[in-house]
Amino acid sequence: MTDTTIAQLKDFVGQEVRISGWLYNKRSSGKIKFLLVRDGTGLVQSVMVKSELAEDIFNLFDELTQESSLMLTGTVREEPRSPGGVEMGVTNIEVVQIAEPYPITKKEHGVDFLLNNRHLWLRSSKQYAIMHIRDEIIWAIREFFHNRDFVLIDSPILTGAIGEEAGTLFSTEYFKMGKAYLAQTGQLYLEAACMSLRNVFCFGPTFRAEKSMTRRHLTEFWMIEAEMAYCDNERNLIIQEEMLAYVVEKVLKNCMPHLEKLERDISKLESIKAPFPRLDYGDAIKILQENGSEAKWGDDLGAEDETILSNRYDRPVFIVNYPKHAKAFYMKENPDNPETVLCSDLLASEGYGEIIGASQREDNLEKLLARIREEKLPEETYEWYLDLRKYGSVPHSGFGLGIERTVTWICGIHHLREAIPFPRLITRLYP
Amino acid sequence: MTDTTIAQLKDFVGQEVRISGWLYNKRSSGKIKFLLVRDGTGLVQSVMVKSELAEDIFNLFDELTQESSLMLTGTVREEPRSPGGVEMGVTNIEVVQIAEPYPITKKEHGVDFLLNNRHLWLRSSKQYAIMHIRDEIIWAIREFFHNRDFVLIDSPILTGAIGEEAGTLFSTEYFKMGKAYLAQTGQLYLEAACMSLRNVFCFGPTFRAEKSMTRRHLTEFWMIEAEMAYCDNERNLIIQEEMLAYVVEKVLKNCMPHLEKLERDISKLESIKAPFPRLDYGDAIKILQENGSEAKWGDDLGAEDETILSNRYDRPVFIVNYPKHAKAFYMKENPDNPETVLCSDLLASEGYGEIIGASQREDNLEKLLARIREEKLPEETYEWYLDLRKYGSVPHSGFGLGIERTVTWICGIHHLREAIPFPRLITRLYP
Repeated sequence: MTDTTIAQLKDFVGQEVRISGWLYNKRSSGKIKFLLVRDGTGLVQSVMVKSELAEDIFNLFDELTQESSLMLTGTVREEPRSPGGVEMGVTNIEVVQIAEPYPITKKEHGVDFLLNNRHLWLRSSKQYAIMHIRDEIIWAIREFFHNRDFVLIDSPILTGAIGEEAGTLFSTEYFKMGKAYLAQTGQLYLEAACMSLRNVFCFGPTFRAEKSMTRRHLTEFWMIEAEMAYCDNERNLIIQEEMLAYVVEKVLKNCMPHLEKLERDISKLESIKAPFPRLDYGDAIKILQENGSEAKWGDDLGAEDETILSNRYDRPVFIVNYPKHAKAFYMKENPDNPETVLCSDLLASEGYGEIIGASQREDNLEKLLARIREEKLPEETYEWYLDLRKYGSVPHSGFGLGIERTVTWICGIHHLREAIPFPRLITRLYP
Repeated sequence: MTDTTIAQLKDFVGQEVRISGWLYNKRSSGKIKFLLVRDGTGLVQSVMVKSELAEDIFNLFDELTQESSLMLTGTVREEPRSPGGVEMGVTNIEVVQIAEPYPITKKEHGVDFLLNNRHLWLRSSKQYAIMHIRDEIIWAIREFFHNRDFVLIDSPILTGAIGEEAGTLFSTEYFKMGKAYLAQTGQLYLEAACMSLRNVFCFGPTFRAEKSMTRRHLTEFWMIEAEMAYCDNERNLIIQEEMLAYVVEKVLKNCMPHLEKLERDISKLESIKAPFPRLDYGDAIKILQENGSEAKWGDDLGAEDETILSNRYDRPVFIVNYPKHAKAFYMKENPDNPETVLCSDLLASEGYGEIIGASQREDNLEKLLARIREEKLPEETYEWYLDLRKYGSVPHSGFGLGIERTVTWICGIHHLREAIPFPRLITRLYP
């Protein structure tokens, strides 16, 4: 007997094979019974005909509960109406385990119930589709960087008090050294590494102890960050749009059944092509004011402001050159307007909000030190970072892309919590 | 003027181009001066001839300190004796920054000094080579899994008290929910995910608050873990050896100059081919005793024991079926000998010790629960994990590979701390 997977069945039409999986659903139509079986590679309908099966096998139909595990032997037949183009005529069933009554049924379940059962919820077809798309997005990003000779530099998670907002750091006791903090970004470490390896990236979990309960916040999320030596912010923008266009193209090419399962409007994704429009921060403020927003020059943009701006375009839009004091200390002063910095936020289309933050970095030692003092940051923890401006400082730029926000946007789903296998929210650590 | 990188120079022989980089070294030979320039893609010797250069440019030679950043214009010439096969005849130099006296010089530095300057040490040629090999190893692993349709499932870092050894967990205050712990493994989460997606893997940082000061321990290290539904430990072993053989083959193919820089004995790597030898734990104990070890049946193996065993083979060796009580609670009882479990440790060759831990997982609810109680683990945190044995339990297996140990072994270096960009040791959080 040949063992195979559901994804491979189309290669075995007319043959008898065995698959191993779980019962997804079943229905009965007189003397014919239907088992819908999933095996992690696909879903197949299997037909049980009473006259063709031993009685004890046929009777298993009644015993098999949802999510029971089983090995199913049958003959593969073409069936154009089926998702995979085939179905199976059952010849034998070996039960692995009859499942206890499964908690997730066809009725509507509350989000809290589903999150408590996240370890099982992942088996549902929508979650299955999202996880596949997440996998494809991450693979495409890594491939993009690999193809361009970027070197992976894993940045540390446990650090001294360093990063953007020290007030939102998780901390842990670290042996006899006092507290260590969970990193919010690997950027500063990448800046060191790009002085050695030129084009580098990191890709890891980051942590924010923010008390935000919005659908756009997780306490633990994954971020890809890239840093390039001898690179100005103009080239930085081009790499970002090329990367995102590449990712969307790959998802459209390799994940169509998953996008369809999510009922994603494909046309919206098909228009995501480089170049992306660019809007100066000052012009953005004017547009917002004309549209009734209370935003004023000097503010960072709020979620509603971002939605107003993003809805004007069919693809993501860069907002460039924010006011210096709305942004982090390490961004390079704009020589054309020292009140602003050479930076950009990329807003996803369809009102999904910011997915990338980027900037050229301040490479002048005195200016950087002045900003650190202005922000009252602990100078001694930045000593090594300042070194990078003493020993062959060069223009350099980089960006950070939030993975869950990107997955949410590309999947067209509502909430970040479904874009990561096991979401961490301020009220959720389980499972 | 064409801007290019050192790696691309061979495509510009006979042409004048500009590169941007840092001064790695310089030397003088009468009226000819030599600049050794690195740019993150390679190293090139550049020749300054007094009679061919403006005086102010020629005089820059004396000003340029180690690690000064500069843009160098010159004519590319074939030079078979050079590493990249080319050199440059300098026609112009634009100084970006004259570096302050660089702390890392040609003299011997202590390890502590170098680790304090890790942000600069990464620029040294040996560290540069190790980072490239690490990048290649990680890429090859991901490619291996991608080619076999494994789905990436990022497991959470912040968790309840779950994992192997609760005594060695870092903890952090988590809002109003008490303590969260930094995960030591993603395995249990992968077990949930493989019941949906069949073959899954995770790849992230893991944390051990162990007070170990050996050269084989870091408090923060990266681990690749894989989990496969409907997979027994026999197939689990095959996937591990195929994966490692694939990785070594890729490194040999793509990283030869880096291995040479590290003076790695290539022949030792060339013999790493599947299948790997397998040694029953009981036989291993006998061999150890014959070789003067005090190891006895029931113990886990110590570092010295591992070295004795690994030195008997020219490739990694699996030690299989350890005593149940020497291993974690989730390993499946061996039906042929219930005092042992269906597991393996893979010992790297050349005495580098354990790099993979693997097992078939206990899929029987009662047996698993008994082991959890025996080990006095907090039952309520494992509730969701026990669910996996209620709702369609299936045979499943998996493994975890430590990245830094693998990098150390393939690079042939001595200490884990050089195998990660910014090592975390019990006395080190900086930089």
